[in-house]
Amino acid sequence: MANSDVKQPRASALLDPLSQPTKTKNVEGRFRHCKSAPTDLFFPQKKSEMEQPKSLLANFHPSFLQVSLALLVYLGVGTLCFALFRHHIKGTKTNATLDAMYLCIVTMTTVGYGDLVPNSVPTKLLASASVFAGMALVGLVLSKAADYLVEKQEMVLVKALHFHEQVGRMEVREEIKTNKVRYKLVMIVGLLLLLMIVGTIFLSIVENFDFVDAFYCVCCTITTLGYGDKSFSTVAGRIFAIFWILTSTICVAQFFLYLAELNTEHRQHSLVNWVLKRRMTHIDLEAADLDGDGNVSAPEFIIYKLKEMGKISQEDIALILREFRDLDVDQTGTLSASDLKLSQSSPAEN
Amino acid sequence: MANSDVKQPRASALLDPLSQPTKTKNVEGRFRHCKSAPTDLFFPQKKSEMEQPKSLLANFHPSFLQVSLALLVYLGVGTLCFALFRHHIKGTKTNATLDAMYLCIVTMTTVGYGDLVPNSVPTKLLASASVFAGMALVGLVLSKAADYLVEKQEMVLVKALHFHEQVGRMEVREEIKTNKVRYKLVMIVGLLLLLMIVGTIFLSIVENFDFVDAFYCVCCTITTLGYGDKSFSTVAGRIFAIFWILTSTICVAQFFLYLAELNTEHRQHSLVNWVLKRRMTHIDLEAADLDGDGNVSAPEFIIYKLKEMGKISQEDIALILREFRDLDVDQTGTLSASDLKLSQSSPAEN
Repeated sequence: MANSDVKQPRASALLDPLSQPTKTKNVEGRFRHCKSAPTDLFFPQKKSEMEQPKSLLANFHPSFLQVSLALLVYLGVGTLCFALFRHHIKGTKTNATLDAMYLCIVTMTTVGYGDLVPNSVPTKLLASASVFAGMALVGLVLSKAADYLVEKQEMVLVKALHFHEQVGRMEVREEIKTNKVRYKLVMIVGLLLLLMIVGTIFLSIVENFDFVDAFYCVCCTITTLGYGDKSFSTVAGRIFAIFWILTSTICVAQFFLYLAELNTEHRQHSLVNWVLKRRMTHIDLEAADLDGDGNVSAPEFIIYKLKEMGKISQEDIALILREFRDLDVDQTGTLSASDLKLSQSSPAEN
Repeated sequence: MANSDVKQPRASALLDPLSQPTKTKNVEGRFRHCKSAPTDLFFPQKKSEMEQPKSLLANFHPSFLQVSLALLVYLGVGTLCFALFRHHIKGTKTNATLDAMYLCIVTMTTVGYGDLVPNSVPTKLLASASVFAGMALVGLVLSKAADYLVEKQEMVLVKALHFHEQVGRMEVREEIKTNKVRYKLVMIVGLLLLLMIVGTIFLSIVENFDFVDAFYCVCCTITTLGYGDKSFSTVAGRIFAIFWILTSTICVAQFFLYLAELNTEHRQHSLVNWVLKRRMTHIDLEAADLDGDGNVSAPEFIIYKLKEMGKISQEDIALILREFRDLDVDQTGTLSASDLKLSQSSPAEN
């Protein structure tokens, strides 16, 4: 690996500079000619450039705080409404506020046992509206909060699994990166089993169900099926249910999401391998040769293969090229320091 | 646009060749030197190369037929099991087979009214198993079949919307490509409203619900809430329910999926715009200059910006580069016809 790096400087220059010793680069001058920026300026930039997209995307996402806030507002308003209309709700009742919050959770997660049901026009419309809002909110939690929490736990899991091997921070990161979805799936299955066991034991003890009934009620609940023949009817049960239902239903949904993600990743891998192993023909060579100089350079080859893999589209390229043309002020077909100087002096290129 | 093409041949050569007249390319010889492949061979290849990733990915997906078959098997086995254990099921009964199929649909979609519930250990375990299998299956339908059907209908919708403008096949494709998710969302909202209206009218007439109750039952069903205080209890109602519940619950889920997709696309757009509009600095220039010749060529600029946008990762590049090195047999740093000849003659590079 190290030998081939020396033989093919152009190709290796594209590889992650952080994974190679910095000194080698400076010694072998032909690797990279620092014309404008000093090396110490260059390397931090290279690093931030790689991390930028992730943190940027995170900025465009709703934050964990925002999701939690939306959840709190939804539960607050929902509980208040159902509590105000408590005489329009029929079924097994315990404490008014607790029942309202329990109904709110049972509705938003679409479990819908039916042990408490709205019994008037306003409450029926309220329930109809709150189930749609609840679904949207659960979707938001799924896409953001759950994934975030699982990713945080991943690091701990990988470290725990490789505890005896004394791995460093970088190795753990690398390991997570390669098997990201697999670890997420392991995490969520573990959490799910724990929640199912806790639920079954709780229902057996507090609600006095026999083992099969408790397990059946757990399955009915976490999948949001909620037949309603077995449900939480005690004060203690409903307090537990408020937390347990929300957590476990989101866990099951997240489990299926990760399963789908793993499946997609697996298919993507097959495609990538197929594209990489496909024999290059003269026609491919011609198609990949973007600047028409008869040779395919490393960047041209990368773009050609990325397109074949379906990772990027012709539109992506067209969009960036339009920007390239705007930047190429001296119209040499390449960007250089002179282009930057020209663009800074001309007021139109702001 | 046409003028700038002539001025910057390198950049324009990267743009979609199909969108530009073929003749111009052949006349302007410096655009592309056909050294190995004749032009008539090149253009079809270019076209197939662009369409390849899509059809390839489709091959790696489970087909529409496979999903339909899985659905039929699930419904068949589920109905048979529930019909065999019909005396272990309590609730409002009509016809044995119909009830079994109805319970199967109500379970797999996680509506779970509770108007029919398992009443013995084997049926409870059967229901627990079938709800998990059903969820996985509905997920498969969501990811594949529903999307496929909506995409097919899109073409018709766009054509209908632009009927008076006499648009061609290519323009319709272009229009769909740009506003893909938006059109999908419009389609699904239309379908959903239709299903809700049909459901409400049906429940009012056949199940004798008043208007609010019918609407409330529709909302409870399509969101898979299924309190169960209002459900289908007649033979006609349950026959209708079998088809209507499956369609409408999938529609609602698909609606939320498209909403999330639109949101992601919107955020992605903001990121892409931010990346494109960001001022290039000397440090960027240095980082984008992969072969270290002091200039940033168009392909180098594209790869740099794609990485910034988060569309590709360093791993993607590293993987393709490894392949590039294997192919670059004569180790000139570029691929040419001689590399292909060398690789074909050497048995190691098979």
